[in-house]
Amino acid sequence: MRVEIWSDIACPWCYIGKARFEAGLAAFAHRDGVEVVHRSFELDPDAPAPTDIPVLDMLASKYRVSRDEAAAMEARVADAAAGEGLDYRSDRIHGNTFDLHRLLHAGKAHGVQDALLDALYRANFAEARPLGDPAVLQEIATGAGLPAEEAARVLADPAAYAQEVRADEREAAALGATGVPFFVIDRRYGISGGQPADVFRQALERAHADGAIQTLAAPDGEVCGDDGCAVPGV
Amino acid sequence: MRVEIWSDIACPWCYIGKARFEAGLAAFAHRDGVEVVHRSFELDPDAPAPTDIPVLDMLASKYRVSRDEAAAMEARVADAAAGEGLDYRSDRIHGNTFDLHRLLHAGKAHGVQDALLDALYRANFAEARPLGDPAVLQEIATGAGLPAEEAARVLADPAAYAQEVRADEREAAALGATGVPFFVIDRRYGISGGQPADVFRQALERAHADGAIQTLAAPDGEVCGDDGCAVPGV
Repeated sequence: MRVEIWSDIACPWCYIGKARFEAGLAAFAHRDGVEVVHRSFELDPDAPAPTDIPVLDMLASKYRVSRDEAAAMEARVADAAAGEGLDYRSDRIHGNTFDLHRLLHAGKAHGVQDALLDALYRANFAEARPLGDPAVLQEIATGAGLPAEEAARVLADPAAYAQEVRADEREAAALGATGVPFFVIDRRYGISGGQPADVFRQALERAHADGAIQTLAAPDGEVCGDDGCAVPGV
Repeated sequence: MRVEIWSDIACPWCYIGKARFEAGLAAFAHRDGVEVVHRSFELDPDAPAPTDIPVLDMLASKYRVSRDEAAAMEARVADAAAGEGLDYRSDRIHGNTFDLHRLLHAGKAHGVQDALLDALYRANFAEARPLGDPAVLQEIATGAGLPAEEAARVLADPAAYAQEVRADEREAAALGATGVPFFVIDRRYGISGGQPADVFRQALERAHADGAIQTLAAPDGEVCGDDGCAVPGV
C-alpha cells in the first residue's frame, strides 16, 4: 500500500496530522507494507520570502481580529499539538515555503524525505527558526541526512526540483484537494484533515481489506510464470 | 496516475510487453501525468549465477522437448518481438537475475531505472551478453546513467537493495500475480501479460475516467486551506 500525504510546512494541522497518522499507522497490523510519500502543497504561494512577519500578525490581518484574539486561536491549536506530544510556538515567522518543498523533493530522491519533513516541522513549529534563511535550511537539510553539496545546490538553484513541486500541486488539484493535510491511500481513498489516529487506522484497514485489484485483461495472455512462457499458437 | 510494472529481465513477454505498454501510453492523451515504476519479479530465483547455460538448453530441459523444438518456440517469440521492432536472439544465456533487480532499485534511487531496464533487456535479448559477469553489469549500469561508484558498491555488496527486491516480490504475491509482466494502475486495475498496445491505452483511459477517489473522512475536519486553518471550537 502507498499513502501519499499532501502538506505544507506552514500548516499546523499538517504538523499535528502527521503525528496522528503515524500513530494510526503504528496501530495498523500491516504497517510494514505501507510506503509513505510526502507531496507538496503551498497554502500561501504568494507569501514573501524571506520574511520577518510574525505569524500572529499575519493571522490578525488575515482573520481581521486583534493580536490577542489571534493568540487565543493559536493557543487552541497549541493544545491540539500538545495532545500529540508536540511543541508549538506562536512566535514563529510566516513565509514562503516553495524552497522548502524543493528541498523535500531532493530529500525524496536521497531517501531522507520523511526525516527532513520532521526536521522542518520541528524547526518551524517547535523552534520558530527563520526558514527564509538559506544557511538555516542548509543546516536543517544536512542534519536530516541530505548530502551537504546537494542541499547547497538545491538552495542555490531556484529551478532545482521546482517542476516536481508544481507537479505535486497540479495533482492535488486534479484529486480535488483544496486544503491540507490531504491523505490518499493507493489513489483509492482520500482523508482530509488532521483526523484522529483511529480514523487513519480504520482507513488503512479498509483499504487493506478492499485491496484486491480488478483485472482488466485475462491472465491467460502472453505471460511468463513458474511453468515457463506462453508461446503463440502452442 | 501511477503504473507499476512487475517484470523480470529474463522474461521475453516483459521485454515485448514493455514496448507495447509504451506504445499504448504514447497514445493516451493524459500520458504526461503517468508515473511508471518498475518492480522486481524473479521467474527463476533458484537459477545459478553466474551461468553459462544456453537458454535453448534450459528450454529444452524445462519443456522436455528437443533443442530444435525449443528453437522453434523461440522463433515464434522472436516474431512477436520483431513486431515491436525489437531484436531477439535465442543464443542468449540463462541465469539468475537477483543482482540485476538490485541494480534496478539503485537505478530507481538515482532516477535512471527505466533507462537501466531498457539497457538490461537490450543486453540480454538483443545482444546476448553474459549478465552474470559483474564487469558487464558495471558497464551497462554506468552506460544507463548510474554513477560508477554506486554501481560498483551495489555489485560488490549482495545485501544492497536486496530487501527492496524481496519487498517487490512479496507485494506481487499479495496482489495475486503469478506471472509477469504484471501491470497495475493506481493499485486499482491489473493487466497480466504483454497485451496489445491498445489494451494498455484503454486501461489507462478507464482508470483515468474512474479516477475520482473516495473520501473516507469528512472534508470539514482540522484542515488548512485558502481561507486559513480550522480552529477547534471556532
